[in-house]
Amino acid sequence: MPNPTAAMLVIGDEILSGRTRDANMHHLAGQLTEAGIDLKEVRVVSDDADAIVAAVKALSENYDTVITSGGIGPTHDDITADCIARAFGDTIDVRDDARALLQAHYDRQGTELNEARLRMARIPSTATLIDNPVSVAPGFKVQNVHVMAGVPSVFQAMVASVLPTLTGGQPLLSETLRVERGEGDIAGPFGVLAERYPGLSFGSYPFQKDGKFGANLVVRGQDTALLASAMDELKALFPE
Amino acid sequence: MPNPTAAMLVIGDEILSGRTRDANMHHLAGQLTEAGIDLKEVRVVSDDADAIVAAVKALSENYDTVITSGGIGPTHDDITADCIARAFGDTIDVRDDARALLQAHYDRQGTELNEARLRMARIPSTATLIDNPVSVAPGFKVQNVHVMAGVPSVFQAMVASVLPTLTGGQPLLSETLRVERGEGDIAGPFGVLAERYPGLSFGSYPFQKDGKFGANLVVRGQDTALLASAMDELKALFPE
Repeated sequence: MPNPTAAMLVIGDEILSGRTRDANMHHLAGQLTEAGIDLKEVRVVSDDADAIVAAVKALSENYDTVITSGGIGPTHDDITADCIARAFGDTIDVRDDARALLQAHYDRQGTELNEARLRMARIPSTATLIDNPVSVAPGFKVQNVHVMAGVPSVFQAMVASVLPTLTGGQPLLSETLRVERGEGDIAGPFGVLAERYPGLSFGSYPFQKDGKFGANLVVRGQDTALLASAMDELKALFPE
Repeated sequence: MPNPTAAMLVIGDEILSGRTRDANMHHLAGQLTEAGIDLKEVRVVSDDADAIVAAVKALSENYDTVITSGGIGPTHDDITADCIARAFGDTIDVRDDARALLQAHYDRQGTELNEARLRMARIPSTATLIDNPVSVAPGFKVQNVHVMAGVPSVFQAMVASVLPTLTGGQPLLSETLRVERGEGDIAGPFGVLAERYPGLSFGSYPFQKDGKFGANLVVRGQDTALLASAMDELKALFPE
């Protein structure tokens, strides 16, 4: 049975302008792979309502699970929650359960729950909340879309909250052989081997470092025995 | 007049599996911003022909310029060139101009131009070549889609080759004010200021580092005087 599929939507002008280097995609990719969920597509869009709504709809229809990152803070450019409501024809307002979480948090801190902070309690009516152990303001889930914060520490905590609730597949195993020869010498025999193992996937990732060059040959699959057999053949093809 | 728009398509299982952390998106985003070209969307897809073709078509129709990264090496999983030909109904085969570049390069090295290496001369018939000063195997352009290598040093060299040929806009200027207060205290007055300057864009990017927290407030626009005036007001709102 094929693994469940996932897509990610990164929301934020700061990524597309080059101001900030996204860190969440790489983190999520590793976590999903370990859980046996295939991340099939990532999209990055700007803080533009039409672009966000269109991407949410497309990804929600095409993949089992969607995870978004960014745009749920207290400032005027945080428009993700409203866009999710629009994408699913849902209503949105400050919700009592989210407000209670924020109120308790800011009471403990002796900080006022002002209008801006209250914006973080705006949650679509059909959503279930996602726990935020770092800074309390919750993420949320509508249908198959999980909406998370963009700040990496908060994003990672929310991913940890949600992952156990997702149906995983068989974790993808991978083994790597580092070969210090040009990819052009490797490609022929490597391709022939790949054809003989249709149940595995074979990737070649060239490197050039410290005056050495070559490729990392990665074989991936879910069948331990098959993977071991392919790696034996691969090592025989390219002995050290 | 609005700036020209661009999109990027990153192709590669290794990014989506978390094996490799993409570096090209951040580089391209910075370069395009400097050139006054608005990067509006990035997609990352796996080494899957249907997914690549669909993404190329969608991005090519929606944006002025598309730049792809990855999948043009000599191995069996390098399928980008064939997908581009399919997306544009073009034919593809080993092309004499690309073969000549590779032949000269490998002759100099005393390396055989074998079948695998020759794969890098497979170029769609209507394409123009993109110079690769790092490792010779060319990128190419079909219509508004620029196809580049995924290896960061080669990608960066190809971006440098292509950028002067693109129609730029007015570079986006940006100024940042670092404010060590909670975003919830900043958001109200910051949002009011943003509304008074519809010609500029205002973003708030929270940070938490070395025990301090706050937000970097970024104002972006193309009008120097307007930007200076907004920054003066912003500094008055949040004095050090």
